[in-house]
Amino acid sequence: MSPIKILSQKPILNADLFSVVETKLDINGTLHTHRNIYRPPIASVFPLTDKNELYLIKQFRYLHDETFLEEVAGHVEKGESPLLAAKRELAEETGMVAKKWTQFGFFSGNSSVIKSEIHIFLARDLTFGVSSPEEDEEITLVKMPLSEAVKHVTTGSIKNSIASLGILLLSTLEREGKL
Amino acid sequence: MSPIKILSQKPILNADLFSVVETKLDINGTLHTHRNIYRPPIASVFPLTDKNELYLIKQFRYLHDETFLEEVAGHVEKGESPLLAAKRELAEETGMVAKKWTQFGFFSGNSSVIKSEIHIFLARDLTFGVSSPEEDEEITLVKMPLSEAVKHVTTGSIKNSIASLGILLLSTLEREGKL
Repeated sequence: MSPIKILSQKPILNADLFSVVETKLDINGTLHTHRNIYRPPIASVFPLTDKNELYLIKQFRYLHDETFLEEVAGHVEKGESPLLAAKRELAEETGMVAKKWTQFGFFSGNSSVIKSEIHIFLARDLTFGVSSPEEDEEITLVKMPLSEAVKHVTTGSIKNSIASLGILLLSTLEREGKL
Repeated sequence: MSPIKILSQKPILNADLFSVVETKLDINGTLHTHRNIYRPPIASVFPLTDKNELYLIKQFRYLHDETFLEEVAGHVEKGESPLLAAKRELAEETGMVAKKWTQFGFFSGNSSVIKSEIHIFLARDLTFGVSSPEEDEEITLVKMPLSEAVKHVTTGSIKNSIASLGILLLSTLEREGKL
């Protein structure tokens, strides 16, 4: 049996992209108060050509004062499925449409303080339309062999953890003949 | 030049393990207000035996109402280096001491809303002492071949994103003869 029981929870801050919740817990008979963050789920998209070239995007991240090389990703909106969000984000950020979709990962972004779930999709059979990024998104599309993306991860030039996880997972599945 | 400029930031909530900051931004000449979360850095530890067996831990995560198989990890405390935090967390959570330490990854947990940095360490040359987990930690130590840990990731039984990333990265480095 778990030594931790949630006694009560109340929201103390609601922002657009997360809420902060105060949680009262019974941990082995002692009362604790934690503050937790709940985020909407995230859909991450890895579009792959028939030659196993991967499309990534470059975008400036003001929180890090740095341009990141990362995967197409965005929040799942209310009433939307993760797959629908993945299709929408891919179209908005790159203008691409994919005929073949496979979810190849479901992860928890953090287990102790933040509740955040990430759905990872492989997008195949790609065609190009017109992108419509949001006002605060200035996006450059980059295409590279999957093997080169793996090098970017191992050498540290891709820093986004979910981009890195998706790339290594795709590469593992490719090696196992499961891609 | 970046189309995004931070004009001002003020903290609106300070919790033990994160703070919420209100950020005023100039995005292409238009004023936006975002709320961001800043977290202390995290040290993640992957202890490996000389036979490339990996130690992971099982612990109940009340946010997910589930027991997670994940890596030893914890927050870097004020005045502490990531390496010192890694050594402290390994000792506290497992009782292990490692003679050989290598940082093999540095990642950003999220790039858009949350600022969170993760330092990933390989711990080698292990000896056992006595663990001293915190009151809310009930931890089971699990040892398995690195190849089995990879299977847990590809089949979805390891869900923690940083545990998964560290395992796939170790496996990639092993294959490249860099471990």
